[in-house]
Amino acid sequence: MTDQQTPTSAARKPFHRLLLTGAAGNLGVQLRGALGAWADVVRLSDIAPIDALASHEEAASADLADRAAVDAMLDGVDAVVHLGGISIDAPFDDLLEANIRGLYNLYAAAVKHRVKRIVYASSNHVVGFHPVTSVVDVDAPLRPDSLYGVTKCFGEALSRYYFDRFGIETVCLRIGSSFEAPKNRRMLVTFLSFRDFIELVRCSLFTNRVGHAIVYGVSDNPTKWVDNTKASYLGFRPQDSSAQFTHLFEPIAPTAEFDDVAQRFQGGPFAAAAPLEGDA
Amino acid sequence: MTDQQTPTSAARKPFHRLLLTGAAGNLGVQLRGALGAWADVVRLSDIAPIDALASHEEAASADLADRAAVDAMLDGVDAVVHLGGISIDAPFDDLLEANIRGLYNLYAAAVKHRVKRIVYASSNHVVGFHPVTSVVDVDAPLRPDSLYGVTKCFGEALSRYYFDRFGIETVCLRIGSSFEAPKNRRMLVTFLSFRDFIELVRCSLFTNRVGHAIVYGVSDNPTKWVDNTKASYLGFRPQDSSAQFTHLFEPIAPTAEFDDVAQRFQGGPFAAAAPLEGDA
Amino acid sequence: MTDQQTPTSAARKPFHRLLLTGAAGNLGVQLRGALGAWADVVRLSDIAPIDALASHEEAASADLADRAAVDAMLDGVDAVVHLGGISIDAPFDDLLEANIRGLYNLYAAAVKHRVKRIVYASSNHVVGFHPVTSVVDVDAPLRPDSLYGVTKCFGEALSRYYFDRFGIETVCLRIGSSFEAPKNRRMLVTFLSFRDFIELVRCSLFTNRVGHAIVYGVSDNPTKWVDNTKASYLGFRPQDSSAQFTHLFEPIAPTAEFDDVAQRFQGGPFAAAAPLEGDA
Amino acid sequence: MTDQQTPTSAARKPFHRLLLTGAAGNLGVQLRGALGAWADVVRLSDIAPIDALASHEEAASADLADRAAVDAMLDGVDAVVHLGGISIDAPFDDLLEANIRGLYNLYAAAVKHRVKRIVYASSNHVVGFHPVTSVVDVDAPLRPDSLYGVTKCFGEALSRYYFDRFGIETVCLRIGSSFEAPKNRRMLVTFLSFRDFIELVRCSLFTNRVGHAIVYGVSDNPTKWVDNTKASYLGFRPQDSSAQFTHLFEPIAPTAEFDDVAQRFQGGPFAAAAPLEGDA
Amino acid sequence: MTDQQTPTSAARKPFHRLLLTGAAGNLGVQLRGALGAWADVVRLSDIAPIDALASHEEAASADLADRAAVDAMLDGVDAVVHLGGISIDAPFDDLLEANIRGLYNLYAAAVKHRVKRIVYASSNHVVGFHPVTSVVDVDAPLRPDSLYGVTKCFGEALSRYYFDRFGIETVCLRIGSSFEAPKNRRMLVTFLSFRDFIELVRCSLFTNRVGHAIVYGVSDNPTKWVDNTKASYLGFRPQDSSAQFTHLFEPIAPTAEFDDVAQRFQGGPFAAAAPLEGDA
Amino acid sequence: MTDQQTPTSAARKPFHRLLLTGAAGNLGVQLRGALGAWADVVRLSDIAPIDALASHEEAASADLADRAAVDAMLDGVDAVVHLGGISIDAPFDDLLEANIRGLYNLYAAAVKHRVKRIVYASSNHVVGFHPVTSVVDVDAPLRPDSLYGVTKCFGEALSRYYFDRFGIETVCLRIGSSFEAPKNRRMLVTFLSFRDFIELVRCSLFTNRVGHAIVYGVSDNPTKWVDNTKASYLGFRPQDSSAQFTHLFEPIAPTAEFDDVAQRFQGGPFAAAAPLEGDA
Repeated sequence: MTDQQTPTSAARKPFHRLLLTGAAGNLGVQLRGALGAWADVVRLSDIAPIDALASHEEAASADLADRAAVDAMLDGVDAVVHLGGISIDAPFDDLLEANIRGLYNLYAAAVKHRVKRIVYASSNHVVGFHPVTSVVDVDAPLRPDSLYGVTKCFGEALSRYYFDRFGIETVCLRIGSSFEAPKNRRMLVTFLSFRDFIELVRCSLFTNRVGHAIVYGVSDNPTKWVDNTKASYLGFRPQDSSAQFTHLFEPIAPTAEFDDVAQRFQGGPFAAAAPLEGDA
Repeated sequence: MTDQQTPTSAARKPFHRLLLTGAAGNLGVQLRGALGAWADVVRLSDIAPIDALASHEEAASADLADRAAVDAMLDGVDAVVHLGGISIDAPFDDLLEANIRGLYNLYAAAVKHRVKRIVYASSNHVVGFHPVTSVVDVDAPLRPDSLYGVTKCFGEALSRYYFDRFGIETVCLRIGSSFEAPKNRRMLVTFLSFRDFIELVRCSLFTNRVGHAIVYGVSDNPTKWVDNTKASYLGFRPQDSSAQFTHLFEPIAPTAEFDDVAQRFQGGPFAAAAPLEGDA
Repeated sequence: MTDQQTPTSAARKPFHRLLLTGAAGNLGVQLRGALGAWADVVRLSDIAPIDALASHEEAASADLADRAAVDAMLDGVDAVVHLGGISIDAPFDDLLEANIRGLYNLYAAAVKHRVKRIVYASSNHVVGFHPVTSVVDVDAPLRPDSLYGVTKCFGEALSRYYFDRFGIETVCLRIGSSFEAPKNRRMLVTFLSFRDFIELVRCSLFTNRVGHAIVYGVSDNPTKWVDNTKASYLGFRPQDSSAQFTHLFEPIAPTAEFDDVAQRFQGGPFAAAAPLEGDA
Repeated sequence: MTDQQTPTSAARKPFHRLLLTGAAGNLGVQLRGALGAWADVVRLSDIAPIDALASHEEAASADLADRAAVDAMLDGVDAVVHLGGISIDAPFDDLLEANIRGLYNLYAAAVKHRVKRIVYASSNHVVGFHPVTSVVDVDAPLRPDSLYGVTKCFGEALSRYYFDRFGIETVCLRIGSSFEAPKNRRMLVTFLSFRDFIELVRCSLFTNRVGHAIVYGVSDNPTKWVDNTKASYLGFRPQDSSAQFTHLFEPIAPTAEFDDVAQRFQGGPFAAAAPLEGDA
Repeated sequence: MTDQQTPTSAARKPFHRLLLTGAAGNLGVQLRGALGAWADVVRLSDIAPIDALASHEEAASADLADRAAVDAMLDGVDAVVHLGGISIDAPFDDLLEANIRGLYNLYAAAVKHRVKRIVYASSNHVVGFHPVTSVVDVDAPLRPDSLYGVTKCFGEALSRYYFDRFGIETVCLRIGSSFEAPKNRRMLVTFLSFRDFIELVRCSLFTNRVGHAIVYGVSDNPTKWVDNTKASYLGFRPQDSSAQFTHLFEPIAPTAEFDDVAQRFQGGPFAAAAPLEGDA
Repeated sequence: MTDQQTPTSAARKPFHRLLLTGAAGNLGVQLRGALGAWADVVRLSDIAPIDALASHEEAASADLADRAAVDAMLDGVDAVVHLGGISIDAPFDDLLEANIRGLYNLYAAAVKHRVKRIVYASSNHVVGFHPVTSVVDVDAPLRPDSLYGVTKCFGEALSRYYFDRFGIETVCLRIGSSFEAPKNRRMLVTFLSFRDFIELVRCSLFTNRVGHAIVYGVSDNPTKWVDNTKASYLGFRPQDSSAQFTHLFEPIAPTAEFDDVAQRFQGGPFAAAAPLEGDA
């Protein structure tokens, strides 16, 4: 009746091979350094070129919409941190290839290659049409604020299916605004520091069991639109806060512009965006 | 302070033009007859041929994946009953074209042509991985039981976005098993009589405002896995029950086979289906 | 360990004296006849004249804003059915006297005269700013649609206080639209037949204990905006439905006018009413 | 992808052997006749003598506190309807033997003999300290009104453990007052007709999967203190109502006696009972 | 797609004119100093005299029950912090004038003068009849513990109406016990430091949108009866705690006096108060 | 209208006599030292010998199953901290005597001797069959993971009854893993430091009123499976965290062993334990 774990040998890291997609993106660059501590081999993928590989790194870029290429990319992989795909609003046909067909390809390959866990970059834009005068928890009804957000809803549903049907565990990270610093007042609420982002991925990879988890990726900011209580089994405790940046944005009184859609909904400018060329 | 409605002239039906997609399918055939009473013109669409048109009917078939064709199909339409697309599990590439790209095309055209309401055939397979020992309401977390179910989750999210962003109202019908009679024991629970199906569409079209509604399409069967209380503003009160068919399926005692996935989850055989050729 | 009740003598009715306020109003007139079966003496009050008194009836009209008169009115009373006060939107100063000061006077007198129960005519206008695309239960947040509705919120809070502090039981009846027949499409949803209204009062008076209860007064209409499940300990089971009146209002397709406030909220025209002279 | 059941041969009943405990009690006598239609062999147990056995019946009485006897009683049994034990308040030492040790013995034997399902007579007295001004659903916190009720809480917890750990399915029937007719006013609320009781057991035995279910055993009485919505997957739809007995109990006005504990809580006289000799 | 705010000129404060009512009261005095940093002009109102005005201050006292005076008081005002009215239990007629008629006057004037936001001093006494063994969130049912509390319920309902109907935003502050230090054991739970009170008003004024918000005004005390999670979009994070005052009140064992109403309910002595002269 | 407490004389401690059962056990030894500060006399009980008594201590050991001995043990006691009984899984007959019959004896004696409060060592094993991918609050359905856990469910139900019926207040401490340090990875989640344990008992004894409270006994560990929000009226704020012990257990990647029952459920090895000799 003991569940004491035998410590793994010092010579071996917890994962043999981790795959990082979107490795050349804003967040991929931040995360890349951390992964080396967790895996013997870090496989990096991006449409953009991957710069100088370290000795424990290998490149395996693939167009996500290319089923065979994605299949090859997952060969020998223990777990995936999937930051790839399109992470802003874009024409639907582009989103369809990258975020829908591409994600299907990833999970289909994960079944085949017996990948056990995927950390999936979802987005707070799956709930962006909730008003800024509400606090949403991880069970809140989906209210996507953009076609981009709709594709992330698809991703959460698809990964749920692959968990219920095939047992592949996924943590859906509903990432807020992860930059060096907030760029506007809204980001004081949605800010996720790079350090907290990396910690969130660490929790997602190393919690013994995660099932199909949904968690908001925000730092411990003064104002909160989201509530992670039901995801506290992941052990994510943010260390940073946007409070240090508050002085960058002078307080303003409520004005008529607050009736704008961009001010009324959590998704901010996404919720107010005009349709893209050729889209509605 | 009165909201008395002036009765519309007897010479004019409530809708000028209704579009029915999937008009040649199992349910489309049932519904086609009813629509004539509600619209001056009923436009029918299907990939399969539409048989003999009545004087108030017009054919306007389109491949849902063909954006221009779908756009033309919605020209002049007041409201849509969208039964089209693929309604069983199928290879993902097929589902992608019909149920994802096709649905996007439909909503993009609806914005352009100022369509006010869409009745969307979703499915109980969006919650098919909930156990048969639970009762789900219309806010229950999505648990799709198949790739087909995942595409219906996409449809519910997409239509939610088009409501929040563009004001197009949608009723998502999570249709159970709509046939002449239940074909197996599971369908005693999920049965939706044709009469109740038509009534459900009527409620969806004629309720003054529906917002973005979700409702389960089941008759008043003895055993219930779903709870429509929160959708009772739609006025759907089923008239039929599967009770009259119970004698077709002799009672059986619990056996080991009840541990099968198909017996444990509401989605039944969908939840237990092996991956299709080329799919996972 | 028995709680068998000894039947009361046939010569004595359950209540000795019941007070009915608002006895000359639309609903008071309906109810007056029923009360004679339940009480030896029925005391009737209204600002308007009470017509011919039966032998078991007595008149005791009072201006609700007159504390001493209200005090006298409650002398010797076992229970009150309080339909008095203003039941439509009105200038605030009038509402203040009738529905706020008047109600305080009633409860202050009830404490003094040891009245055990009050049936209070609240209104569905305490939740009239909930959208017509939602279903509210008896715990739903208050969303009054008018100053009138605000005074009914006051009444529910006041009666709650008198229950918690002094043990006076109250049933708050959130009455919908109680007329011979619905007068417009909205009333198909809010209709309460006279028969069901009387039954609701009967349940409110004769349920052994009611505590501080809130219940919606609607018949079993096809479309529902309210859910009385949590009040089912009152035993109210409506016998009537607005279904028989549906034919009076031809079905209409959704139109632009549905964006009107009067169409979007349960309160209907109340929610859309312009401020009264001198009010806002 | 079919789940069509092959009808069982006419010569064979759904269950081979059903065990009925408490067979000589008030409800056991009612149920005994029905079981013959469902099982080839009905094994009957009671502390009291079982009267004349039919050809398909066998007697196997056991003191529930006798582990070996209970073990023998479950040999060859497919499913159990467990009405045995003490069903009124009693000295704790007696309850301990019959309802705690006895129930453990039953489940321990069920594991050994691979019994698949047990229908367990729990009681509404597990929630009897909820006030009569509330409606409890099947997830409501336990509020036992007596030591008897506490032993039924034990039974629900024990059977939950045996489901989670060993897969034995149990339906806990929180039976109200099941007699020919209500004996007092409280029973107008808690009445369960014999016909509805038998139907409830039928649903409990023949629903494909029940997991660990909790359901209130009440007829469709006008006044409700309980809400079975979450148990509607069991298919129990009561046919009877206490409404036909309402005339037996004249309506009474609220009086001071309504402050009695027996009037304030759902458990009625149980909640107010003085401790038994030697008990507290 | 940017929502970057242009910093306001250093020469101009966020608000032009703020109105503070109840400016001479316990909390008004605390707040007065802070407002100068937020507004070019601070208008002060109280029935009591306002002491020496600073250069940015102006006096505009009015009897709240005087409609014309209140109307004039709101002329040219951007936002209001409404601490005025009666903040303890008092005869109903006094409460009626100050807290009911007075509040109506304030909101009616706010509509006329296009005031955008009101910070309203509600009170924890709107929920004071919840037991001390429960934790209430901002949606908890109202349970006022006094006529004073009932008038604050009125205020919350009235302000909700003015938000839904006219778009005036209100933050209802359910203020606990705001003094230099707790005065008794109960206030260890309800304590709100002056610093935290000022921060709460700051959050209420400067959050971009607040809608109609309800928030409990308590510091981060060790024991909590309230839960502000759903109001965390206001950004209120208390800095102080009553823990530093715990030593003032020696721990005591539970005694019979704990059955007193003042010990059982969150409202403490309010819930137990005898009716005032002429009141009930 | 004051609730100011007169400070008790310095010469007298808050409690006259506290009883500690299980005084020689792991947690009893920790707590024993603290009790002297709270009570004039600390009565100690255990089956094992109690070592050297301090001047304020007295020994009064009793076999919990011995009704007369337990009765004597409670004579003159103000409050009880009940750590006695069996705190690991054990044969049912042993659990029955210590945790069921013994607990009944304790409460029956408490009624007789007018004990006001009992702090009861329940266990997180009453919810141990909830998955590790969920967070349970104090109202979560019971899911015991062992016969031991079932007896703790009994204890929670029994103490609830004694509160509702006799007014004896109980705090049920669902203690996690209280040792010097976590012994395995699971205990990083369930760890309760000795200091936090003592603080939890202090809160349980000195909160003015506790009613029938349930609270999880865990320190402020990074990963949480439980949520004490609804128990925050107890004032328990843990000071310690298992974070300092994290380095003892190297992070490991998800592996197939994570499908083990011991890894999937909060109860860990309890949920997976094989039946004990003679048990099921």
